[in-house]
Amino acid sequence: MQVKRLGERGLIAMIHRMQSAPPPGMVGIGDDAAVLPAQQRGWLISQDMLVEDIHFRWDWSAPEQVGVKAAHVNMSDIAAMGGRPRAALTSVAVPGSLSSEVLESLYRGLTRAFDPFGVVIVGGDTVGAVDKLVLDVTILGEPGPGGPVMRQGARPGDRLLVSGRLGASYAGYMLLSHGIGWPGTDIDDRSVLTAHLEPQARVELGLAVAPFVHAMTDVSDGLVDEVRELTRFGSVGADVWLERLPICPATRRVGEHFGGDGRDYALYGGEDYELLMAVPPSHLQAVQEAAEATAIPLTEIGAITDRRQIRWLDDGNPVAVKDVAFFDHFSR
Amino acid sequence: MQVKRLGERGLIAMIHRMQSAPPPGMVGIGDDAAVLPAQQRGWLISQDMLVEDIHFRWDWSAPEQVGVKAAHVNMSDIAAMGGRPRAALTSVAVPGSLSSEVLESLYRGLTRAFDPFGVVIVGGDTVGAVDKLVLDVTILGEPGPGGPVMRQGARPGDRLLVSGRLGASYAGYMLLSHGIGWPGTDIDDRSVLTAHLEPQARVELGLAVAPFVHAMTDVSDGLVDEVRELTRFGSVGADVWLERLPICPATRRVGEHFGGDGRDYALYGGEDYELLMAVPPSHLQAVQEAAEATAIPLTEIGAITDRRQIRWLDDGNPVAVKDVAFFDHFSR
Repeated sequence: MQVKRLGERGLIAMIHRMQSAPPPGMVGIGDDAAVLPAQQRGWLISQDMLVEDIHFRWDWSAPEQVGVKAAHVNMSDIAAMGGRPRAALTSVAVPGSLSSEVLESLYRGLTRAFDPFGVVIVGGDTVGAVDKLVLDVTILGEPGPGGPVMRQGARPGDRLLVSGRLGASYAGYMLLSHGIGWPGTDIDDRSVLTAHLEPQARVELGLAVAPFVHAMTDVSDGLVDEVRELTRFGSVGADVWLERLPICPATRRVGEHFGGDGRDYALYGGEDYELLMAVPPSHLQAVQEAAEATAIPLTEIGAITDRRQIRWLDDGNPVAVKDVAFFDHFSR
Repeated sequence: MQVKRLGERGLIAMIHRMQSAPPPGMVGIGDDAAVLPAQQRGWLISQDMLVEDIHFRWDWSAPEQVGVKAAHVNMSDIAAMGGRPRAALTSVAVPGSLSSEVLESLYRGLTRAFDPFGVVIVGGDTVGAVDKLVLDVTILGEPGPGGPVMRQGARPGDRLLVSGRLGASYAGYMLLSHGIGWPGTDIDDRSVLTAHLEPQARVELGLAVAPFVHAMTDVSDGLVDEVRELTRFGSVGADVWLERLPICPATRRVGEHFGGDGRDYALYGGEDYELLMAVPPSHLQAVQEAAEATAIPLTEIGAITDRRQIRWLDDGNPVAVKDVAFFDHFSR
């Protein structure tokens, strides 16, 4: 069945079937607007758009994976504020020729990703007749007890810590875009494909570390860009210790295959959705313990300084970095 | 300059220049997520997507008008809940070849429409490389003192009232889509073009009548569809008095030109963005007085009944209506 025969009412009924009812006080799909209950600390809100052939390709991703990715890319913004995602709105522009099964799978991916976090889709829009599918998600969250964790707030002496590993998403992208068979054989290696196709927002980690960090952001545009973001405010800079970057063996091997070492993927690749945070030394232990409870490793990769510059150091030697991330969606 | 040379940072700087700073407690563009302050009555939220060649065409609309329309289409959903719009997020997928002047005009339209209502753009996304421009707006509002006015709540004996006039947007669409010169000459007639290209959300009216109505919605998909929405709940139906529909002379004349009488435009045309409300007889006078204060006329066009059916009556004679609105964006 084509999407245009499913209709907007059919789509709404489908979403209702796929997810739990909204919690008390929240009014979901079905009226002119949804109602979000009063929250003492207000609401966090963010919006990210995914476009076919830019953010995903049908020959790389199953429709369900596209839904999963859209959900996590958005939840990552709430995680970066130390908040808990609660509700979402989803707008989709679909080619009229698309089968309703594709749209159903896309929504199954969204609801499958949202459900463990208790996120409910409360509204959105669906329109037809475009060439490429466009999926726009608005995510809403609740700030943690200490309030939102902003990008602003890093102080000289803070340590820079990053979760998980960097560059893996771009390594996956390189493999997929070159259409070559994966050179390795062990199961770990496939993780770079998963990193690109189904990134995981660090929601629990963000919540756990929020009380102990001065500033935080997610690494969506590559490390170079995000360190700049954390040092944009006040009179601070940073030293980043490149030899410490958490780059997994699979990412290194992909990097070597294409004539590098994977480090560029970490610096410029983007779409890692790890958390980058500035932590005062007195809270390092608390942050590490919080991270252990969520089973996501944290790596100390640098420090905030009182110099208004960022030094990228390789075993102590300054290294020049480029100005632009690999992913500039505008320029493609 | 092409949009791709403007870049996302350039776009954000442009938006900052165009609008006022967010009110205290609200954190706007620039972090991973925006922060909406705590509101005692919670928040209203809705999302509407506009797609080039479906909701607008560059040969009919100036870019600024597209922004104005997107803003009002979204604010209309808040008006229909009896709420006050407060903040917005805007995502745009733009063809890379688009000039940055077009995007700037689009945003000028958005901010020009939002500004009088105190609505601030607090976030969004911008991505490139699609064929058709896609603009998705999320609107946030504050419920009125009596809480949100839902579609549910109409009771037998309530009167059905509608604001402004119906069918004018579709009359404008018919003129534009046939590419014919407008047959009339007086300035009033042009109002159907304006109704289609720059609809006005009934924000002040919605706020004014909210304390007195049982149920309300906006007429975005034609009257037939919206009366069904107001009678979907409980054991109510409605009588609608077709001879009373507020159809302006210009809409009638366009209807006659195309072999009808304009009534079909009111019933199925859509995009009128007027308010349809169920008012208890005891509050009719209060509602009319509230409307007079906003200078938007209200017309009594029917009544809620205790029969589970909708009767469309032309001078008392039942008339059959069609099942589908003219605008079904899915089926194009």
